[in-house]
Amino acid sequence: MSGDSPAWVNLHELADAAGPKLSAQAAAYFNGGAGDEHTLAANPADWQRLHLWPRTLAPLDGSHTRTMIGPNAVAHPIWLAPVAYQQLAHPEGEVATAMAAAAQSAGMVLSSQSSVAVEDVANAMRTVADPAGDVAPLWFQLYWQPDRALTLNLIQRAEAAGCSALVLTVDAPVHGVRDCERRAGFSLPAGVRAVHLPHGVAQASTLAPLLQAAPTWHDLNWLREHTRLPIWLKGVLHPADAALARTAGMDGLIVSNHGGRTLDTCVSTAWALPRVADAVQGELPLLVDGGIRRGTDVLKAVALGAQGVLIGRPQVHALACGGALGVARMIRLLRDELAVAMALCGCSDLRHANRDLLA
Amino acid sequence: MSGDSPAWVNLHELADAAGPKLSAQAAAYFNGGAGDEHTLAANPADWQRLHLWPRTLAPLDGSHTRTMIGPNAVAHPIWLAPVAYQQLAHPEGEVATAMAAAAQSAGMVLSSQSSVAVEDVANAMRTVADPAGDVAPLWFQLYWQPDRALTLNLIQRAEAAGCSALVLTVDAPVHGVRDCERRAGFSLPAGVRAVHLPHGVAQASTLAPLLQAAPTWHDLNWLREHTRLPIWLKGVLHPADAALARTAGMDGLIVSNHGGRTLDTCVSTAWALPRVADAVQGELPLLVDGGIRRGTDVLKAVALGAQGVLIGRPQVHALACGGALGVARMIRLLRDELAVAMALCGCSDLRHANRDLLA
Amino acid sequence: MSGDSPAWVNLHELADAAGPKLSAQAAAYFNGGAGDEHTLAANPADWQRLHLWPRTLAPLDGSHTRTMIGPNAVAHPIWLAPVAYQQLAHPEGEVATAMAAAAQSAGMVLSSQSSVAVEDVANAMRTVADPAGDVAPLWFQLYWQPDRALTLNLIQRAEAAGCSALVLTVDAPVHGVRDCERRAGFSLPAGVRAVHLPHGVAQASTLAPLLQAAPTWHDLNWLREHTRLPIWLKGVLHPADAALARTAGMDGLIVSNHGGRTLDTCVSTAWALPRVADAVQGELPLLVDGGIRRGTDVLKAVALGAQGVLIGRPQVHALACGGALGVARMIRLLRDELAVAMALCGCSDLRHANRDLLA
Amino acid sequence: MSGDSPAWVNLHELADAAGPKLSAQAAAYFNGGAGDEHTLAANPADWQRLHLWPRTLAPLDGSHTRTMIGPNAVAHPIWLAPVAYQQLAHPEGEVATAMAAAAQSAGMVLSSQSSVAVEDVANAMRTVADPAGDVAPLWFQLYWQPDRALTLNLIQRAEAAGCSALVLTVDAPVHGVRDCERRAGFSLPAGVRAVHLPHGVAQASTLAPLLQAAPTWHDLNWLREHTRLPIWLKGVLHPADAALARTAGMDGLIVSNHGGRTLDTCVSTAWALPRVADAVQGELPLLVDGGIRRGTDVLKAVALGAQGVLIGRPQVHALACGGALGVARMIRLLRDELAVAMALCGCSDLRHANRDLLA
Ligand SMILES: Cc1cc2nc3c(=O)[nH]c(=O)nc-3n(C[C@H](O)[C@H](O)[C@H](O)COP(=O)(O)O)c2cc1C
Ligand SMILES: Cc1cc2nc3c(=O)[nH]c(=O)nc-3n(C[C@H](O)[C@H](O)[C@H](O)COP(=O)(O)O)c2cc1C
Ligand SMILES: Cc1cc2nc3c(=O)[nH]c(=O)nc-3n(C[C@H](O)[C@H](O)[C@H](O)COP(=O)(O)O)c2cc1C
Ligand SMILES: Cc1cc2nc3c(=O)[nH]c(=O)nc-3n(C[C@H](O)[C@H](O)[C@H](O)COP(=O)(O)O)c2cc1C
Repeated sequence: MSGDSPAWVNLHELADAAGPKLSAQAAAYFNGGAGDEHTLAANPADWQRLHLWPRTLAPLDGSHTRTMIGPNAVAHPIWLAPVAYQQLAHPEGEVATAMAAAAQSAGMVLSSQSSVAVEDVANAMRTVADPAGDVAPLWFQLYWQPDRALTLNLIQRAEAAGCSALVLTVDAPVHGVRDCERRAGFSLPAGVRAVHLPHGVAQASTLAPLLQAAPTWHDLNWLREHTRLPIWLKGVLHPADAALARTAGMDGLIVSNHGGRTLDTCVSTAWALPRVADAVQGELPLLVDGGIRRGTDVLKAVALGAQGVLIGRPQVHALACGGALGVARMIRLLRDELAVAMALCGCSDLRHANRDLLA
Repeated sequence: MSGDSPAWVNLHELADAAGPKLSAQAAAYFNGGAGDEHTLAANPADWQRLHLWPRTLAPLDGSHTRTMIGPNAVAHPIWLAPVAYQQLAHPEGEVATAMAAAAQSAGMVLSSQSSVAVEDVANAMRTVADPAGDVAPLWFQLYWQPDRALTLNLIQRAEAAGCSALVLTVDAPVHGVRDCERRAGFSLPAGVRAVHLPHGVAQASTLAPLLQAAPTWHDLNWLREHTRLPIWLKGVLHPADAALARTAGMDGLIVSNHGGRTLDTCVSTAWALPRVADAVQGELPLLVDGGIRRGTDVLKAVALGAQGVLIGRPQVHALACGGALGVARMIRLLRDELAVAMALCGCSDLRHANRDLLA
Repeated sequence: MSGDSPAWVNLHELADAAGPKLSAQAAAYFNGGAGDEHTLAANPADWQRLHLWPRTLAPLDGSHTRTMIGPNAVAHPIWLAPVAYQQLAHPEGEVATAMAAAAQSAGMVLSSQSSVAVEDVANAMRTVADPAGDVAPLWFQLYWQPDRALTLNLIQRAEAAGCSALVLTVDAPVHGVRDCERRAGFSLPAGVRAVHLPHGVAQASTLAPLLQAAPTWHDLNWLREHTRLPIWLKGVLHPADAALARTAGMDGLIVSNHGGRTLDTCVSTAWALPRVADAVQGELPLLVDGGIRRGTDVLKAVALGAQGVLIGRPQVHALACGGALGVARMIRLLRDELAVAMALCGCSDLRHANRDLLA
Repeated sequence: MSGDSPAWVNLHELADAAGPKLSAQAAAYFNGGAGDEHTLAANPADWQRLHLWPRTLAPLDGSHTRTMIGPNAVAHPIWLAPVAYQQLAHPEGEVATAMAAAAQSAGMVLSSQSSVAVEDVANAMRTVADPAGDVAPLWFQLYWQPDRALTLNLIQRAEAAGCSALVLTVDAPVHGVRDCERRAGFSLPAGVRAVHLPHGVAQASTLAPLLQAAPTWHDLNWLREHTRLPIWLKGVLHPADAALARTAGMDGLIVSNHGGRTLDTCVSTAWALPRVADAVQGELPLLVDGGIRRGTDVLKAVALGAQGVLIGRPQVHALACGGALGVARMIRLLRDELAVAMALCGCSDLRHANRDLLA
C-alpha cells in the first residue's frame, strides 16, 4: 500500500500474486471448481461477454455508489461472500477480512465454516469505523445441519453476535466433484478448523446420509420460526426456485452457483440473473456472485437486477497477499473501477441502472 | 484401488494415464477417429456445452440411480460399449472387462470382434455376483457378414452363451477414413484376433465387395426370423432412420456415431439424440454413446431421452491401467458423479428426468 | 507409391510434406492468401463446419462416383483447378499434372499463366489412357488481356490444342494484397514464365491501367462471338452476378474466391455456394473450389448444388512431393474418401445428393 | 522507402516493428487499452468478422477514392485520429505526422494534448503541398476544461492557426482503467508535455472534481456560441446520443470508443456504426475509428455509413519506425489496399458504397 508501483493493479494479477503465498493444498481448495471447471470459467466470461453502452455528456456531478441492499443503506454494492477456512490464507483469517470490510464499508457474509468465531469477527468489524463512522453489515451463512439443535445453536450465536441476517446456502446438499482437491488430496492442516461446528462433523464420505439430511422447502418454515433475522437463500438459479422462495417468505436471494464449485456445466450467474429478476419482479431483493472481477461486472450485475454483488476468491487471494490491508485494497480497487464505469455509462446513481445500459 | 491418493480422479486423467501403457499402434487404434477428428472432438464437447439447471431444496432422501434399459431393471444406466480387440489393452481382454461390469452391475455389449470368446465372457460375468446378487446383462454386438451362415452361427453362439440381446451395428458398412491408424500402419499383433470370425475374414481392401455385402433394411426381416433375442440397431442418428427402425420391428436403438470413427463431421450424438427421441416418441427405447465422460453427461443423456449410455474408450483405458479393477473403478466413479449431479439438479429418480433439467 | 507406410495419408500431411521441397519464395507464392488470410482459413473451415447426416441400411450395392460436369460424363467430380507456374513446384510442371489427371480421370483446367504450353499439356493427357480408355477433359483458363488480339490468340491456341471449354477468371481484375509474397519479395526464377503470354506482359505496378483493362459484362459478348467453346466464369460468388452470367449466356460457373488470394474477408465458397445455387435454379451448371481437402468436403459441395469441385494448392503440393505420381495419388485418395463418405451417408449416386445430406 | 524488400508490408507488422523503437513506458501508453482489453481486441476483430461480397465484371475504369468528409472534398477517406504526446514516439512529434498527412492528402485531427503547438503543426501541413497542390484539412480536438477561459483560449488558438473544425471528445470525462499504464508506472518523460495546457493541469487523482467538471449537453450551447468552426463530437456510440447531438446542432460525429482505452467491454465501433447511421438518417456526417487496420476495414466502414475513418495507433507506430516518411508510407499503404478492395467489390466510387457490399 506504499506509493511504489503496485504489485497488482487488478484482480487477475492479484490471483497470480496469491499463487506463491499459498500451499498447493490451499490453492487447490480456494481456486478449484467442480468437474472440468466449465462453470468456473463461464462465470467471469459471461460477465465480460455482456456489452455496455457508453453514454456521453450526461450530468455526472454528484455521482455516487450508494445504494440499498435489502433494508441496509450501503456506501457501495460490493460485499464479501462467505468463504470457509480463511486461516488457510492468513493466520488472522476471517478477523483480518472483517476489518478490511469494515474499513471499506463492505458488507460481509461469514461462512458457518469460518475458522474464526463469529463473535471475534463481529468485534473486529465494530472496532474499525468506516470513514463515515458507520459499521458495515455482518451476515451469517448457514449450512443446514443434520442435527436441528446444532442448527439452532448456530442461529442463536449469530444473532447474539449481532449478525443482521442469515444466509442459508442451498446449492450444496452434497460436495461437488472437485477433482483438483481430490488430486491434491486436500485436508485441513492442524490448527485450522470450522470453529462453529463440533469436531466430529466432517463431511460424510457416502452420499446417502447427506441426501437424507438435505434441507427441503418444508424445512424453511422451521427456520423462519426460530429466528427473528431476515433469511436469504444463497444458491438459487432457477426462476421457479426463486418464485418458491418468495412464496416461502424468504427475505432475499443470492443468485449463485457457489463459484462453480458444485455442479459443473450449470448455468452461469450472469446468464441466470436476469431470468431470476424477471421471476421475482422486484418483490425480493437479489444479490449475485460468481466471477465478478471488474467494476464493469458490478455495474452489469446491477443493471440486470441485482442490488449488489459478492466477491469470493479474490477475498482470500488478497488476504494471502496482504492481510487486512490487501483485502481493503481489493475492495477499494473494485469500487473505484465501478465509479469509473458508471461515469463512462452516464450513470450517476446505481438505483437508476437498468438493462438499457447493456447493448 | 488402495487408500493412497489416486492415480486418476476423472476419465480425462484416465486417458492420459493409459498413454504409456499402450503400444503406439494400440493407442492409434483405440483413440483415433475418422478424418480430422472433428466428430471425435464434438462428441464430448457437445455434452459439455449443454447447461444444467441446478434445483434447490427438493426432497432428496431415497434418491437412487436405478432405472430400466429396455426390459432390464438395472442398478444404474452406465453400460459398456462394444469395443473390439481388448487384448490389445490387457492380456485378459474382454474377460477382465466383463468381471468389472458384473461387479459394478453394468450391462455389457460384447463386440463381435472380441478377442475372447463370448462363452468365456459370459462365464466371467456369471461368476462375479454384484452386491445385490444380480447378474448384469450381456448383449452381443453383430457386424453383418457377407456369408449368412456365418451370421447365423454368430447369433446362435451368442444365444447359447446366454446373451440377452443382439446389437446390429449399422453405421460402419465400410471402414472409416482413420488416418491415425493408417499413419501408424496399424495391424493386429500376433496372438490377438477376432476369435468369433474365421481367420480369412479380414476387411476387404477395396470398397466394392463391402458395399455389396452391406446390410439393408430388407435384411432385418431375415435377422428377425433367425433369432428369438431382442434386436437393437447401433449407429442410428437420423430421425428418419429411427422411424424406419420402429417400422422394421426393432426393439431398441443405440444413438451412436461409432465414437467419431466412421464419418467425420457428422452430427454429434448429443445433438442427434433429442431429434431421435422426438421421432420415436417413447415407443422405442434408446441408448446413446460417444464422448460420455462425466456423470453430468449421463444425466444430460437421460434428460434428452436416453434410458442409458454406453462408454467406449475409457473402458480400454481403464483396462490398460488396471485390468478388471481399473474398469470397475471407472464405472464406479462415473456412477458416483451421476449421483452427485442428480442431487444438485434436485432429481431423485432418473425416470423423472426430462428436458426441464437443461437450460 | 510403394507398399511402405505412406509419407502422407491426407491432404494436410501432404501440405506439410511439401514444405521442405519448395523454396521459400515458391512456398509464399503457392500457399499465401490475401491480407490476414481470413478467407484462406475460412474456406476449409466452412466446409468442415457443415454437418453430414449418416444414413443406415440403405442399399449401397452398385454405388459409384460417376456424374456429369456440364456436358461431360466423368468418372468422378474431382477436377484440378488452374494453378499458375507449376514448374516452381516440379521441373515437369503442368505436363506432370496433366498425366496424373488423365490417369485418374480427373478433368483439368489449365492456367493461362501455365509454365508449359497448352499443346504439350494436351498431348500429355492424350498419351495417358485412363483405366476405361477415356481421356479426361482439358479446359483452358483465360485472364482477359488488355490487348484483344492477344486474347484471341490465346483462345485459338486453346481451341486448336483440343481444350473443350474456356474458363474466364473474373475475380482478379487486380492483384490481391498478398503480404506473404510481398514479404518474401516473390519473383519468378529464371526459366519459369507464363509461356502463353508475351515477355513484356508482367502485372502493371500501378492500379489505373489494370482497372481500365478489366473485363466487364459487356466484353462477354465479344468473347462469345470469338469462340465456339463453352464459356465458364470463374470467381462468381454473388447470386446477382450468377444471375447476370446466366443472362449473358454463359455455360457454367465456378464458385470461387480464388483460394482466398484476392479479397480477404470475403465470403467463403461453402457459404456462397447454396446461395448461388438458389439463384441459378439448376439452369447453369456449377463447380466450386476453395479449401476442399476431404472426401466429405466434396460430398457437401455436391449436396449444396455443385456438380463437382476443383482442387488448387494440394495439386502443387503433390507435384512437389512426387511429380505425376504424387498428383495421381492425391486425386485417388480424395476419390476414395468420397466413396467412403457416400457409403456412410447412404448415397449411392451423386446425382441424387441434395441438401438433405446436411444437418 | 527504398526499393529493398520492405521492413513491414501491413499495419500488423508495423506495430511489431515499432516495439523495439519505443520505451516500455511509451509502449504501455500507446498500445494499452482499458481493463482486460476486450474492447481493444474487439475493435479490429469486429471489422474483420464482417464479410464483403466480391462483385465481378463491373466497370472499373475511372475508379477513385475521392469523397466528401463533411464539407471537405478529399482525395481519400483515411484521416489521422488525435493521438496525444507524439514526441514520445519521435522527436519531431506531431510536426512529422502533419507533414506526412499533408503529403498523402490525409486530414488530420490534432490532439489538445499535442506535444507540439498547433501553429507549428498547421505550418508544417501548409509547407507540404500534396500532389494536386491541395492542403489537407487540419482539425483541432478539444477536451473540455474545468476553466472556461482556458477552453476559450484553446478554441481561439485553433481558429487562428487555421484549423477548420473543432472535435470535442466526449467519451473520456474520466481516465479509463488502463492497467498496463498503471503497471508500467507511466509518466511523461522530461521534455514531453501537453503544450497547449498550463503546466498544472494534470489529471486529478480523485474522481469527484473530474465528474463535476465533465461537460454536459447543456455546455454545447456555450461552445456553439464561442466558435465559428463546425463542431464534431468524438466518442458517440449510442444511437440516442447521436440523435441528441443532431438536436444540439452539432456538425458531425466520430463514432469511437477511444480505441478501447476508456470503457472496457463496451460495444465495438463496427457494431455501433450502423446503429448510429440508422439514428442520424444521413443528416449528420459520420466518421469512425477504432481498429481500422486494412483497406477492407475502410471500405466496410464506408459501406456501413461513415464518410471516412480515423487511424490511431498505427500513426505513432509509423512515426516511431520512420518519422514523417513512415507515417506517409502507412497512409499510402492503406489507401492502396482500399483501392484494391474497391476494385474487387466492383465499387468504383465510395459515394455509392452501401450495405449491399456486406454479406
Ligand atoms: C474457497 C471457497 C470456500 C467457500 N466456502 C463457502 C461457504 O462456506 N459457504 C458458502 O455459502 N459459500 C462458500 N463459497 C462460495 C462463495 O460464497 C461464493 O459463492 C463464490 O466464491 C463466488 O464466486 P467467486 O469466487 O468467483 O467470486 C466458497 C467459495 C470458495 C472459493
Ligand atoms: C477401439 C474401438 C473399437 C470399437 N469397436 C467396435 C465394435 O467392434 N463394434 C461396435 O459396434 N462399435 C465399436 N466401437 C464403437 C463403440 O461401441 C462406441 O460406439 C464408441 O466408442 C463410443 O464413443 P466413446 O469412445 O467416445 O465413448 C469401437 C470403438 C472403439 C474406440
Ligand atoms: C498458386 C496459385 C496459383 C493460381 N493461379 C491461378 C490462375 O492462374 N488462374 C486462376 O483462375 N486461378 C488461379 N488460382 C486459383 C485456383 O484456381 C483456385 O481457385 C484455388 O486455388 C482454389 O482453392 P484451394 O487452393 O484452397 O483449393 C491459383 C491458386 C493458387 C494457389
Ligand atoms: C496513445 C493514444 C492517445 C490518444 N489521445 C487522444 C487524444 O488526445 N484525444 C482524443 O480525442 N483521442 C485520443 N486517442 C484516441 C484516438 O483518437 C482514436 O480514437 C483511437 O486511437 C482509434 O483507435 P485505433 O488506435 O485502434 O486506431 C488516443 C489514442 C491513443 C492510442
